[in-house]
Amino acid sequence: MSTSIVKVLGTQASPFANRVLIALNIKCVDYEFIQEDMSNKSELLLKSNPVHKKIPVLIHGDNTICESLVIVQYIDETWTNGPSILPSNPLDRAIARFWVAYIDDKWLPLMSDLGKAQGEEAKLEVQEKLQEALVPLEEAFVKCSKGKSFFGGDNIGYIDITLGCILGWIKAIKIMLGIEIFVVTKTPGLVNWGDRFLEDKFVKGAMLEPEKLVEILELHLAKREANNAN
Amino acid sequence: MSTSIVKVLGTQASPFANRVLIALNIKCVDYEFIQEDMSNKSELLLKSNPVHKKIPVLIHGDNTICESLVIVQYIDETWTNGPSILPSNPLDRAIARFWVAYIDDKWLPLMSDLGKAQGEEAKLEVQEKLQEALVPLEEAFVKCSKGKSFFGGDNIGYIDITLGCILGWIKAIKIMLGIEIFVVTKTPGLVNWGDRFLEDKFVKGAMLEPEKLVEILELHLAKREANNAN
Repeated sequence: MSTSIVKVLGTQASPFANRVLIALNIKCVDYEFIQEDMSNKSELLLKSNPVHKKIPVLIHGDNTICESLVIVQYIDETWTNGPSILPSNPLDRAIARFWVAYIDDKWLPLMSDLGKAQGEEAKLEVQEKLQEALVPLEEAFVKCSKGKSFFGGDNIGYIDITLGCILGWIKAIKIMLGIEIFVVTKTPGLVNWGDRFLEDKFVKGAMLEPEKLVEILELHLAKREANNAN
Repeated sequence: MSTSIVKVLGTQASPFANRVLIALNIKCVDYEFIQEDMSNKSELLLKSNPVHKKIPVLIHGDNTICESLVIVQYIDETWTNGPSILPSNPLDRAIARFWVAYIDDKWLPLMSDLGKAQGEEAKLEVQEKLQEALVPLEEAFVKCSKGKSFFGGDNIGYIDITLGCILGWIKAIKIMLGIEIFVVTKTPGLVNWGDRFLEDKFVKGAMLEPEKLVEILELHLAKREANNAN
């Protein structure tokens, strides 16, 4: 079954789609990447994910799997002869799942708040919250990495993928708004970790450069402004 | 390690704590249940879950695990000689994780909306949404159960535990507000599934009776009213 054709529906700007591509890279799985236009969703996407109508979707032979974290775990459990993405023992797996839930349920919603914040003061307030909410992750990094490069140890693991895929957008936001989220004064370990993550061979090529994301964001904002003006 | 002492911090009224107790029952693990007073959290809870300060917490020897779904997966992966809670093959595991995320991220927030809805009309609107949001789960039940009793087949599994633990509150809400969420006209399979779930040997005793939940809710609402009047 693991020799079936693998397709990923997504956009390269989506950190959630990036997670899937990196997981497949770690397992050395060849895949076809099908670029979706989210303003005009394909029939294939609507059929593959009728519940959420969202990317990413993994199509593996006859199997269709949705939701980035569900897909990453599926990849880890399907291509078992590649490096492990989740740790092997139940306690470490639980710790990884705990922090991954923290990233998606507590930290990422603050990123959405940043998008909605109106005015300099409101933006700075969210910046402060985002920085503070990284402090527990800095502590988790120290414990999980045990002095090695990544949350997953010598190699990129489940927490690395989940948090790391946001780094492109973090850099894009810094370029566009001057907002800094990973700062040396509060989370020095994560600043260095982020640099290592973006240089990793499994990551390069899976994520767009921050400058490209800035272009995409500017285009999106211009479109929104034009719509609001109509 | 799996012979270490097991403790659960929780309240019996919490569906999230119920999930943990049922998972331990399925694995025939003896545990000590430590009842928390959520208006006056114990030092042990604050120390065990410093990030969220929430129940449930599982303490297993020297290991401390937080977040109900993380705990249920930990239990499944630690006591591997008992019946499996998650399915064994990667696709079925992914399907179970997809629906569990749907329940917690899409369906349960509507239950909170019900608590906040002011007036009869607003409540009926949320009732309609809750019923509609169960329809995809009815379809999932047909596919996953393959004509058997539970999402997990012959035995209670991951989706069953996640959704089933809310059933006590569903019944309590019906008694107090007349709001019906599982209805035969829209989700007949789930209505029957719910009856079977509540009669299951691993569930009985882990969850409070609806009448008891009504008492707790009435007490909570009276306290809130008294606080608002002050």
